[in-house]
Amino acid sequence: MNILPTISTPADVKRLDYPELTQLAQEIRDFLVAKVSATGGHLGPNLGVVELTIAIHRIFNSPHDPIIFDTSHQSYVHKILTGRANQFDTLRQKDGLSGYTNRAESEHDWTESSHASAALSYADGLAKAFQLTGQSDRTIIAVVGDGALTGGMCWEALNNIAACHDRKVVIIINDNGRSYSPTIGGLAENLANLRIHNRYDQVMEQGKATLKSLGWVGERTFEALHAFKEGVKSSVIPTEMFSDLGLKYVGPVNGHHQKALDAAMAYARDHDGPLLVHVVTEKGRGYAPAENDVAELMHSTGQINPETGLPLQVKKPDWTGVFSEELLAVARSRDDIVAITAAMPGPTGLTPFQEEFPRRFFDVGIAEQHAIASAAGLALGGMHPVVAVYATFLNRAFDQLLMDVGLLNLPVTVILDRAGVTGSDGASHNGVWDYAITGMVPGIHVAAPRDGDQLKALFHEAIAMDTPTVVRFPKGTLPPVIPAVETLDDGVDIIRYTDASADEDNVPVVLIVAIGAFIGQALAVADALSEAGVAVTVVDPRWVVPVAPTLVTLADAHDLVITIEDGIITGGIGSMIATAMSDAGVFTPIRHLAFPQIFPHHATRDELLAEVGLDDAGCVQSAVAWVDELFPPAASDEDQLEQ
Amino acid sequence: MNILPTISTPADVKRLDYPELTQLAQEIRDFLVAKVSATGGHLGPNLGVVELTIAIHRIFNSPHDPIIFDTSHQSYVHKILTGRANQFDTLRQKDGLSGYTNRAESEHDWTESSHASAALSYADGLAKAFQLTGQSDRTIIAVVGDGALTGGMCWEALNNIAACHDRKVVIIINDNGRSYSPTIGGLAENLANLRIHNRYDQVMEQGKATLKSLGWVGERTFEALHAFKEGVKSSVIPTEMFSDLGLKYVGPVNGHHQKALDAAMAYARDHDGPLLVHVVTEKGRGYAPAENDVAELMHSTGQINPETGLPLQVKKPDWTGVFSEELLAVARSRDDIVAITAAMPGPTGLTPFQEEFPRRFFDVGIAEQHAIASAAGLALGGMHPVVAVYATFLNRAFDQLLMDVGLLNLPVTVILDRAGVTGSDGASHNGVWDYAITGMVPGIHVAAPRDGDQLKALFHEAIAMDTPTVVRFPKGTLPPVIPAVETLDDGVDIIRYTDASADEDNVPVVLIVAIGAFIGQALAVADALSEAGVAVTVVDPRWVVPVAPTLVTLADAHDLVITIEDGIITGGIGSMIATAMSDAGVFTPIRHLAFPQIFPHHATRDELLAEVGLDDAGCVQSAVAWVDELFPPAASDEDQLEQ
Repeated sequence: MNILPTISTPADVKRLDYPELTQLAQEIRDFLVAKVSATGGHLGPNLGVVELTIAIHRIFNSPHDPIIFDTSHQSYVHKILTGRANQFDTLRQKDGLSGYTNRAESEHDWTESSHASAALSYADGLAKAFQLTGQSDRTIIAVVGDGALTGGMCWEALNNIAACHDRKVVIIINDNGRSYSPTIGGLAENLANLRIHNRYDQVMEQGKATLKSLGWVGERTFEALHAFKEGVKSSVIPTEMFSDLGLKYVGPVNGHHQKALDAAMAYARDHDGPLLVHVVTEKGRGYAPAENDVAELMHSTGQINPETGLPLQVKKPDWTGVFSEELLAVARSRDDIVAITAAMPGPTGLTPFQEEFPRRFFDVGIAEQHAIASAAGLALGGMHPVVAVYATFLNRAFDQLLMDVGLLNLPVTVILDRAGVTGSDGASHNGVWDYAITGMVPGIHVAAPRDGDQLKALFHEAIAMDTPTVVRFPKGTLPPVIPAVETLDDGVDIIRYTDASADEDNVPVVLIVAIGAFIGQALAVADALSEAGVAVTVVDPRWVVPVAPTLVTLADAHDLVITIEDGIITGGIGSMIATAMSDAGVFTPIRHLAFPQIFPHHATRDELLAEVGLDDAGCVQSAVAWVDELFPPAASDEDQLEQ
Repeated sequence: MNILPTISTPADVKRLDYPELTQLAQEIRDFLVAKVSATGGHLGPNLGVVELTIAIHRIFNSPHDPIIFDTSHQSYVHKILTGRANQFDTLRQKDGLSGYTNRAESEHDWTESSHASAALSYADGLAKAFQLTGQSDRTIIAVVGDGALTGGMCWEALNNIAACHDRKVVIIINDNGRSYSPTIGGLAENLANLRIHNRYDQVMEQGKATLKSLGWVGERTFEALHAFKEGVKSSVIPTEMFSDLGLKYVGPVNGHHQKALDAAMAYARDHDGPLLVHVVTEKGRGYAPAENDVAELMHSTGQINPETGLPLQVKKPDWTGVFSEELLAVARSRDDIVAITAAMPGPTGLTPFQEEFPRRFFDVGIAEQHAIASAAGLALGGMHPVVAVYATFLNRAFDQLLMDVGLLNLPVTVILDRAGVTGSDGASHNGVWDYAITGMVPGIHVAAPRDGDQLKALFHEAIAMDTPTVVRFPKGTLPPVIPAVETLDDGVDIIRYTDASADEDNVPVVLIVAIGAFIGQALAVADALSEAGVAVTVVDPRWVVPVAPTLVTLADAHDLVITIEDGIITGGIGSMIATAMSDAGVFTPIRHLAFPQIFPHHATRDELLAEVGLDDAGCVQSAVAWVDELFPPAASDEDQLEQ
């Protein structure tokens, strides 16, 4: 008889005995493989935390005791144990289950952002709040990967948590030696040392003999846990990194040994003050295709064949691939090109560079601040660093881009992948803020290629500059290449010229400014307006920051300007163009198609674009309405001029 | 005979013997007190690093060996030793010596940002560059305060530096137990333990007997240093925090003992791979008024009487003081109000709160990311956190404001002090980016009070809201209170009404939108335009994000809109108003008076405002020119309408 169907609250897990828990863990793994292979999602991380999540929910009392999952892509098991198993068919789909914790789904969820290294800060804040309000019976549990510990926020939080010995924070380090790729740095070496020299295999895994000798027999759980409290102490490998900070450390604990985990959690529950529990887990545990994926242990996957783990769809050429190839080509002829990733060499296309130029490749950990600021140092030393990050994660390093790269005006090229709307990873993965934040940096040049050919060209232009540069492109496959009719002196591409006769006939003439990959929408709008008898010019500025002077000149020669971009409207490229026009005394009406000022729910990229009116149909609808409003068909020529 | 006048390059310091160095140190201290008391500046930090800076320049070879000062407000001694003593009369003044390192001043300066915790990242980057280019004879020296070590960037950098054992980075921890105020957290406790248990006083300070026993006699420096290499090893107190990371640690070293410092630097120079040297210094050393300033050890000062250390100017009521008082008043009636600082309780006005409500006050260290994210945790726990930071430092926590506070829509109030142009602290201290970055956060409400009364009112409105709120105000004394003629339903204050008869006479009617403390400039513009026969309305939106609907309605009823703010023009409030107008189909011409897209040099606030045309005269000049351009005196009514 299956156990999983009987689990709808954490209380259900508390009632099970160890043989049942072993069966439950297996059922959960089977469930995860079956469901996530159909929807896509974070399979590897969740396979690794099955027993750990069970232990947390058995020993602690959620939501009375808040459980904070760092990034929370490893919260699937938590979702299963808190009554959401029946929603997994809708995982990461519009109106379906989020791939992250989400307060709208459950009282057991506390956070929603998927950015790493924040959990300990939430935990510190919650602990302070509980202390102030006399809720000393509530413990906060923060589950954080060893990879996330390389992020500076964790250090800031640890420094604060450690300083106060009377707040109950249990920090669980889910140590699988990984972020996306193997965790780097001195910390990782230290944790690895602990793993190598650990004794849990002796203490915990020598079978029944060892367990019995510790008093763990049958159902005598309480006794067993009591005994374990002593056992943990003796099994602790001395590590002073955390205890020097003032944090008690226990571990390493075998992350797939339910009794050991339960015991460690119980020890943590009964401990006064902050405690760090070092749990060693295996990402992808129990699923051969994940265990065999050495590079990333199936961190995140699309739809796959559950038997083989192979993707159902053949990978099509994508933006990342074009960048990856061009970087390699350039690096072969330029020794000063170095590449930096914040723990994501694979997803950002740097793996081929890493393989060919290992000495010139730097994975700095989940540490965007250091990625950008150390790039400044590299540039001061004569290198030309290329920092490749997801657009959403550049938000972590805005200050460094401004103050360390921008203020010194250094030749650092930042590649922003997954820029614009990304969709299924939810609100915090969308890369819609990059135009607004890069646009604030004096002296920076930001390029938005419209297709693969432009990505190549603009990347080459970027690394030829002596100033900070950014090249940003969206998630997904490459659109068709769209040639320019002409390239103006300041780099602006004319994609489609106004029909010269239109102006003579006093037909309204609209300038469409297509930003980056939104060229498709721009052309759809152009077609629709042309059909409606309006004359259109379509331009692609290519370099969108700073605003090209010819854009302003062109705007002055048109009756309406429409900008189309997939960044937020506030402070976006459209508003920069509007400001440049205003500065130049050009008051042609301007309207912006851009991402609204909202946090979108998860859905596919196409669904989201349609929802906010940024698909072809939505853009056309807005543009036609604007033209109708400004140039009513019945209006006389004089009326039009007065607009 | 004075030695200081003979010092113009580091080589000059290398030639001196120890009695001469002792004299030089005293002369430098006298020089610093004399000069900084006249100009204002960072006196305490520089008094603390006299011997340390001498030792660095004696043992290393700048600029071949780059010296990176974290924040670099402690670089005055470095400036003196590198030929800039004669410029100290112009310290922090327009066209004078910068209060920070500045590449335009000297080849010995490498960085320019004053934001903390970045030095180790620069050092890591430089070390990587030197290694790649075969410059293995160059060592990078990074001087970082113990306070700055509480910042996450340092952790990210340490993790990277420690991982590579063949790059020469010398990390000097200038441990004075301080940032502005005492350093907090587990790290600080660990360092304090080291200081308490240190042996340098035994090894280094027992006078000649000890030194002789180590072989340090007379001029036999080389021998002495060689002997010290052994001495250091035996004087090291075991600390595992850094060695667990893989970093060799030596210290603590007496930061005011020249020979010990020289020896420690020589040891570091000769060590292969990264090394951390823990130097214990006394902030304000040798200057009684600084040593007696227990709270801040005269971290930063205005003009003072050099004898007494007392300020020459009486402190006038300022913005910070108003906030400080109101916070206290509110906290007395609301238990849920907690306050957070990132290591600056004094400058941000939190000290009175800290004294009255110590349990509800949290200094998180120089850790803006954690300040904001732990505020999110506190809010999840039912508190209403008030986070007080300098506007420029919020840049460090943009991602946390967006993803941890904004996405969860939590009641956190951020107080931005020193917003807008600050001036004498240079480019990186100006708080001109806050409108643009806060304006990107969906659901946030940003207030810009125009005077002390408005600050009180808006702060009360902010903490009554259930959403993220920001209240921002500038540096300096309070302007006169300016009453509103009327407050509209959505909170917009009408400061001055258009003369109703003006519109009838076809006189152009201008809407002036005054943002925050720039009300003064707005009224100057209004006066000038009125005199020129133009009708004006002056409004203060008070809440500047989101844009108030009545602003758009008002804009529609005017012939020109002029926005006046002290944030950057890109993505600023003016551009948000323009976008709101465009969205609503309102195409009244709009022009922005705002800070240009530049990094300004240091100068006083007034000088800078004048330089960029944002003083009264500059604003009037721009406004008059715009009106003349749009409404030429000779033009007919029809021409005006067509604009």
